[in-house]
Amino acid sequence: MNDKMQQLKERLRVINDLNSAAAVLHWDQATQMPVGGEAARARQLATLSRLAHEHFVDPAIGQLLDALQPEWEEAPPTEDDGALYRYVRREYERAIRVPAEYTERAAAHSTAAFSVWAAARPQDDFAAVQPYLEQSLQLSREYAHYFPGYDHIADPLISRAEEGMTAAEIRAIFAELRRALVPLVQRIQAAAPVDNSCLFGDFPREKQYAFAREICTAFGYDFSRGRLDETHHPFAIRFAHGDVRITTRGRDDHLGDAFFATLHEAGHAMYEQGVAEALDGLPTAHGTSSGVHESQSRGWENLVGRSLAFWEWQYPRLQECFPDLAAIPLAQFYAAINKVEPSLIRVAADEVTYNLHVMLRFDLELALLEGELSIAELPAAWNARYESDLGITPADYRDGVMQDVHWYGIGIGGLFQGYTLGNLMSAQIHAAATRAHPEIPDEIRRGEYGTLHEWLRANIYTHGAKFTPKELLQRVTGEDLRVAPLVAYLQQKFGAIYGLSG
Amino acid sequence: MNDKMQQLKERLRVINDLNSAAAVLHWDQATQMPVGGEAARARQLATLSRLAHEHFVDPAIGQLLDALQPEWEEAPPTEDDGALYRYVRREYERAIRVPAEYTERAAAHSTAAFSVWAAARPQDDFAAVQPYLEQSLQLSREYAHYFPGYDHIADPLISRAEEGMTAAEIRAIFAELRRALVPLVQRIQAAAPVDNSCLFGDFPREKQYAFAREICTAFGYDFSRGRLDETHHPFAIRFAHGDVRITTRGRDDHLGDAFFATLHEAGHAMYEQGVAEALDGLPTAHGTSSGVHESQSRGWENLVGRSLAFWEWQYPRLQECFPDLAAIPLAQFYAAINKVEPSLIRVAADEVTYNLHVMLRFDLELALLEGELSIAELPAAWNARYESDLGITPADYRDGVMQDVHWYGIGIGGLFQGYTLGNLMSAQIHAAATRAHPEIPDEIRRGEYGTLHEWLRANIYTHGAKFTPKELLQRVTGEDLRVAPLVAYLQQKFGAIYGLSG
Repeated sequence: MNDKMQQLKERLRVINDLNSAAAVLHWDQATQMPVGGEAARARQLATLSRLAHEHFVDPAIGQLLDALQPEWEEAPPTEDDGALYRYVRREYERAIRVPAEYTERAAAHSTAAFSVWAAARPQDDFAAVQPYLEQSLQLSREYAHYFPGYDHIADPLISRAEEGMTAAEIRAIFAELRRALVPLVQRIQAAAPVDNSCLFGDFPREKQYAFAREICTAFGYDFSRGRLDETHHPFAIRFAHGDVRITTRGRDDHLGDAFFATLHEAGHAMYEQGVAEALDGLPTAHGTSSGVHESQSRGWENLVGRSLAFWEWQYPRLQECFPDLAAIPLAQFYAAINKVEPSLIRVAADEVTYNLHVMLRFDLELALLEGELSIAELPAAWNARYESDLGITPADYRDGVMQDVHWYGIGIGGLFQGYTLGNLMSAQIHAAATRAHPEIPDEIRRGEYGTLHEWLRANIYTHGAKFTPKELLQRVTGEDLRVAPLVAYLQQKFGAIYGLSG
Repeated sequence: MNDKMQQLKERLRVINDLNSAAAVLHWDQATQMPVGGEAARARQLATLSRLAHEHFVDPAIGQLLDALQPEWEEAPPTEDDGALYRYVRREYERAIRVPAEYTERAAAHSTAAFSVWAAARPQDDFAAVQPYLEQSLQLSREYAHYFPGYDHIADPLISRAEEGMTAAEIRAIFAELRRALVPLVQRIQAAAPVDNSCLFGDFPREKQYAFAREICTAFGYDFSRGRLDETHHPFAIRFAHGDVRITTRGRDDHLGDAFFATLHEAGHAMYEQGVAEALDGLPTAHGTSSGVHESQSRGWENLVGRSLAFWEWQYPRLQECFPDLAAIPLAQFYAAINKVEPSLIRVAADEVTYNLHVMLRFDLELALLEGELSIAELPAAWNARYESDLGITPADYRDGVMQDVHWYGIGIGGLFQGYTLGNLMSAQIHAAATRAHPEIPDEIRRGEYGTLHEWLRANIYTHGAKFTPKELLQRVTGEDLRVAPLVAYLQQKFGAIYGLSG
């Protein structure tokens, strides 16, 4: 039996090596590749992806899983191998239901749709992308039909990103969160506005990167197993336990992305670096879901990196780097980096309004998949939700419905919920960490992050994808997903900044 | 029939994509990878290499070749496809003779031998590497035995690098060259020595790289399909027609490698960039042999980049970059970069003595394979040849027999001849180019390299590996490999520099 497990692992490691090689090629494409390399790179990536898929849906994998099934389902000899068996069984059953013909058609469509969007967005040309969106929606419906028996047509799409979660439960959670957030935004808007002009000035991004590197290192990102580069869109990417890289971007005239996007990606990367080395090369060796991943990136970026405790220690150091801040008091700086302002752009949104951006996209995805909304009606529906939730209306498509790459570069359905699930989880997880180690806030106030990092590593990172997001959240916090901790955190933090009465 | 060719090409493109992905991973390893990435990278590369090999020795490839054979051998419909058929047939027959078990054993041995050498060389510890060299020699003999019927045991090893060439003909050619070179070196040593102290001073390597970038661009290296990075050992690497990169290295206190190694690698890279785009993704889409490749790298580096004509135009520009040269006349600088001096290190050798370094290694490889020399006797034999050919004896193993990575990182046999074959060919090829376009020297004197580059592209680069080195040399020069052109070139150039009487 052990022998079968070894055979399975050998096959899985080959697939992992193909996927890791593809990841290196992706990273190279984003950071290093000369323009002339595009065409061949697309072909190389398609080949690696096709070979990885072929190796995974090989009936031999199914036979090995079947041979393991009888005893492994009940009493696996080790936790790691039991989790690996469950994970691979689930992904294998998912993979073999989708015909290779569909996968290739969908991949080709995504590539075409992305190119059309990239050209049409600067022209503000929704008509150009509309037929591609219609095709994307059709492809998503087709995908769902390979998984009959779902409660909601979005469920098979959602479960790819968040195993075990459904449209119904996310919709209920999101509705509860929205009921709390909309009034909070309104109260903040009625308060005296925060002045964030101190963040605009002479902030060379190379200096912001250098400061961010120090902070990432202090957080626990290991540069001997990673590196930081500049790209158009920031990302974190894992090639192996020993090689998890991050990229960032920024402006020379604004203290913002160059620092905070770096912390965000380091949060993703610390999760990947913290996965137990024993899992390396196996499919369980990565973060378990988009939501849990966001709980780490946004946890380090916001709950730590935008907290008063953090800046009590770090602000004098920041002032040393940037003379423009010398005369700005900590309280003013802290309010500036946490300024709440309804805006059109999700990725630039503050902690309070951010989730409104996410939840409206999620709702629109569901309405599209349900057939309640057509692609032709999508721009109007988008604008109506921005008006009702945030009180502003996009003046164009570019900063409206054509804003995010997701629907154009990947497809429709199951793509946005993770951002807000991550925020919800981050509040629960940090509350649990502080229950376990009440000294954490004081440590952060002293520039020490080791207790928090070690607790996250031991309770979350090390497990990789061995547990589903729900299982993991239960293990870590003893709770199911809850709205209250995030709302309490936001009310307390922003109540203080904006002087709202409790 | 056409259909079979298409099927063959589809299979070959998959293999090409795997090899290209491996090349990207190698480049990343040398230029970007954090130290923590080593272990996983070795595993990823081994997997890609194994899969590429498995895809190539697939009996389906043999069946497709057999189906094509009857008509393609006599009258292929196109030159490209005919050449592809011949190339793949030859490589397939070579690949299937070598058992997978041998290939894996040899690869594992090379990896181990390299590590031992890398640790032992700084310690000057030949005893540590001796058993590995003995095993390498044994593996080379084993390899040769998979190709019975050879004239010389080195022939199967040589033909991997230079298809169609044999130990006997190379030995004869090299003997002739050596008979001309040894007295030339002696006459130069008897002449007044050249003072090259002007090359040592304040020469920041970033400025040397910048100057080299301009020259490479002027030569015809296309940076929109390539890039330049710094590595421990310079190299050029092809991922595709649109992506051929070079690396270099240098010192801040010496005008040398940082400039000339960059030109050398750009020579390799222009060859790869010049292969017809129609061949991209096929196995004929790369330079045809080590020797022809060296003819291009050393041709651009030495016959152009160390010529008086080249510096007549470029020296004033170089002086603008480096104030230390302001007072140094062109003639002094030109002599300095061409100073001939017997030395221990091959890669640092001048144009005249370089081939002596190469040929003695080639002769020692043959003696080892013949059984005329044992590994235990190798250091003494090495030192004796340095004394007899160059008049100097290594004081240690480090700069003696343990100097080059080849025997330790790859194996013994067929590894060195290409360097001198390339020098011989470069003289023949440049003579042919100048016969076809007598204006080339005057153009170089004006900083123009387009006629030379275009002639090389149209006559050599575009063909990739469609022709064997011998076929290509005949097409390009109308001659077989000859010693006289290189000797005439060296006698004329260094006779002038050293004031030797004709």
